[in-house]
Amino acid sequence: MDPQTYMDIATVVTKLKMYPYFDIAHYTLMCLAVRDDVHPHSQQGSGSNAVPFSRKHPLSSWLSSMLICFAGSIIANFLLGEPVITPFKDHQSILTATAVWYLVNFAPFDLVYKLAKILPIKLVLSVLKETQRAHKIYHGVLVAAKLYPSAYIIIVLVGTIKGAGSGVMKNLDRLIRGIWIPGSNEILQPTFVTKASLVASIIFLCERLNMINIPHPLVYFGVVLFFVYFKLSSVILGIHDPFAPLENLFCAIFMGGMWDALRRATVKKPAEEDETKDPRADVIKSKEDKKKE
Amino acid sequence: MDPQTYMDIATVVTKLKMYPYFDIAHYTLMCLAVRDDVHPHSQQGSGSNAVPFSRKHPLSSWLSSMLICFAGSIIANFLLGEPVITPFKDHQSILTATAVWYLVNFAPFDLVYKLAKILPIKLVLSVLKETQRAHKIYHGVLVAAKLYPSAYIIIVLVGTIKGAGSGVMKNLDRLIRGIWIPGSNEILQPTFVTKASLVASIIFLCERLNMINIPHPLVYFGVVLFFVYFKLSSVILGIHDPFAPLENLFCAIFMGGMWDALRRATVKKPAEEDETKDPRADVIKSKEDKKKE
Amino acid sequence: MDPQTYMDIATVVTKLKMYPYFDIAHYTLMCLAVRDDVHPHSQQGSGSNAVPFSRKHPLSSWLSSMLICFAGSIIANFLLGEPVITPFKDHQSILTATAVWYLVNFAPFDLVYKLAKILPIKLVLSVLKETQRAHKIYHGVLVAAKLYPSAYIIIVLVGTIKGAGSGVMKNLDRLIRGIWIPGSNEILQPTFVTKASLVASIIFLCERLNMINIPHPLVYFGVVLFFVYFKLSSVILGIHDPFAPLENLFCAIFMGGMWDALRRATVKKPAEEDETKDPRADVIKSKEDKKKE
Repeated sequence: MDPQTYMDIATVVTKLKMYPYFDIAHYTLMCLAVRDDVHPHSQQGSGSNAVPFSRKHPLSSWLSSMLICFAGSIIANFLLGEPVITPFKDHQSILTATAVWYLVNFAPFDLVYKLAKILPIKLVLSVLKETQRAHKIYHGVLVAAKLYPSAYIIIVLVGTIKGAGSGVMKNLDRLIRGIWIPGSNEILQPTFVTKASLVASIIFLCERLNMINIPHPLVYFGVVLFFVYFKLSSVILGIHDPFAPLENLFCAIFMGGMWDALRRATVKKPAEEDETKDPRADVIKSKEDKKKE
Repeated sequence: MDPQTYMDIATVVTKLKMYPYFDIAHYTLMCLAVRDDVHPHSQQGSGSNAVPFSRKHPLSSWLSSMLICFAGSIIANFLLGEPVITPFKDHQSILTATAVWYLVNFAPFDLVYKLAKILPIKLVLSVLKETQRAHKIYHGVLVAAKLYPSAYIIIVLVGTIKGAGSGVMKNLDRLIRGIWIPGSNEILQPTFVTKASLVASIIFLCERLNMINIPHPLVYFGVVLFFVYFKLSSVILGIHDPFAPLENLFCAIFMGGMWDALRRATVKKPAEEDETKDPRADVIKSKEDKKKE
Repeated sequence: MDPQTYMDIATVVTKLKMYPYFDIAHYTLMCLAVRDDVHPHSQQGSGSNAVPFSRKHPLSSWLSSMLICFAGSIIANFLLGEPVITPFKDHQSILTATAVWYLVNFAPFDLVYKLAKILPIKLVLSVLKETQRAHKIYHGVLVAAKLYPSAYIIIVLVGTIKGAGSGVMKNLDRLIRGIWIPGSNEILQPTFVTKASLVASIIFLCERLNMINIPHPLVYFGVVLFFVYFKLSSVILGIHDPFAPLENLFCAIFMGGMWDALRRATVKKPAEEDETKDPRADVIKSKEDKKKE
């Protein structure tokens, strides 16, 4: 592929309209996530007689899905002191999300739910959704940079939240559905999506600060490809956190791993010699625990 | 009663000042609710030696009561991006509410609490409070419509919150008193008050959009009567949710009841034939469960 | 010491710059508090092999520490409808706090943590921190008085929050670290710091209203001395709540103690005579329970 074609594709991607296809893909995956989060062990098979959550508590199911669909905007608005209700101003989005929520939860014969679980369809939805994520991060960075031009931490935070708001919203969202799992949250065990959104925000910030000498469409397209590639590798290959090795290295160097090893080497522990473990192994082990969760 | 008299009464009701009688009735019932929510099984009888919550934790009891008394404004302010502390700006209201809180919790011989529990007095307080609720919903709709003229969802939401904010605030309010019941919240099991506030908000919105050809005082008075009527039927007859039949019908048609029945009729379930139940019965049953809660 | 010298010292104290020394002392003590709140029973001794929280969840540890370091501003911003993210705009503070967090949690041989636990160093840090607390309360009162000139309740509330925000933030902060203790919060069991911040706010408000005829530097210096004196008596002598006797008296008079006693004296309780206790004793007992917690 010659560079000009690549540039053309990138320019097209940069100017893509999110509504309706990309937004619908996002709403579908989010409503699926909410529905599956409610019933982790009862997948609503054809023979199951249990009344699904959406039948018993339609209001809670709806509000919960809306909060997750618009989590990025809601949290970003909250942090920036804007009205948190703003997403509900846009009737088109809310009605589309409501229609998607209805189809995912109440479609005849559970058709939409079952279709969306088929691998090829799931892959297409994921690709659309990841493209939308890059779009949201970029616009989050733009908005924050307009409000606080030199507050780099805020710009990166808002970009990350726009891309990975649903994770941060999860605890509140579960509470609305009557579920409370205080021992787990996005900040305690950040998922790959959050980390990747952080990286993308930093890239877009660097671009704004003229630290990247590549045309904007290429940067943007690169971020889209990065999200799509890792999402596909997650769905197909089950690689959930490609950052883990980098992180373990970083933790070993800066987050105490090395110093702990040094301390262990210098401090004598006669009574506990049998327990002597490499602290770095602990760090890596805890990372592995996280991945399993 | 000739129509002119009816119209005159309606006009008077529309122009009623809420302060002090209606507000005091509202504060009294809210402080009672907070006090009873603390001690569901110890009704502070004359022979009980248990130290009541208000004696052990006066600050928590006070803040909790204030949050519930001004729940509508606080949550609406939060959603609309206004300072949540605004209700505390109005010294007259806060001091009145504090005086009511003090009398309900600390009156000599528990007089105020015992008086407010007497049925006729409770009925009068309820009538005043329901009138104030209609007033608050109407003004919530007005304020939201001024801020977001064409955002109908927001207008209805703010009206509902103004009328039924204490339910939504309940989880936070309990947390302040050291109680945490995550499995129950207003969105999971909406009470009749919330549903009625939603209906009233929609009526006021329709009126604003010129979809109702009745003079405003009559619409307003109708909403007041609607709240008062159902409150009285709830206190006297114990009918807690007159919307339940409508809701069950709606759920059976739109929220999956019919489709579930159809699916059951077409899909064979040889292994589970003994479990075959009418799914609509499940929906109705779950509604009944809700009512009992 | 002649009055002029005293006045000179007071003027110097009034004009002290908080950055860097006072802020660093504050951050150090806050990061220590977060670290110790995580591991109440494992003090990370030289022989302990347990992986500390900061190694397993650095992001959670960092965000948690930042929220506590800037708790006053964040909560005050939230209440006043300002963007809650504002503290993150000030790169100098955030980077300083991050450096302190890093040193407290990851310093080689745990040096900073161990040093800060040595009594004389702890005393110096405490003196600096209490000076900063007076500064923050004064500026909280100033800001709130500018926004709401005649809303005395709001002014006092914002001053208190600025001085004792970390206590109010504690529940959210613990949630971020995956800990949830709903039965305990600052409003249920207010600590001395919160009560003292309330008193200081009221003093500064009275000064603004020209009810105190003492030059401003003396008032300010008096508040600083008051905080430092009680902090030192708490650290050295273990007196955690010097307000307790006053509070017990107040509760006995106004919060039901007297009325309860009167009721007990007039109402006969034949069946429960063996249980007859002085209700005031209960109140005092519950206060003592609180102190122990």
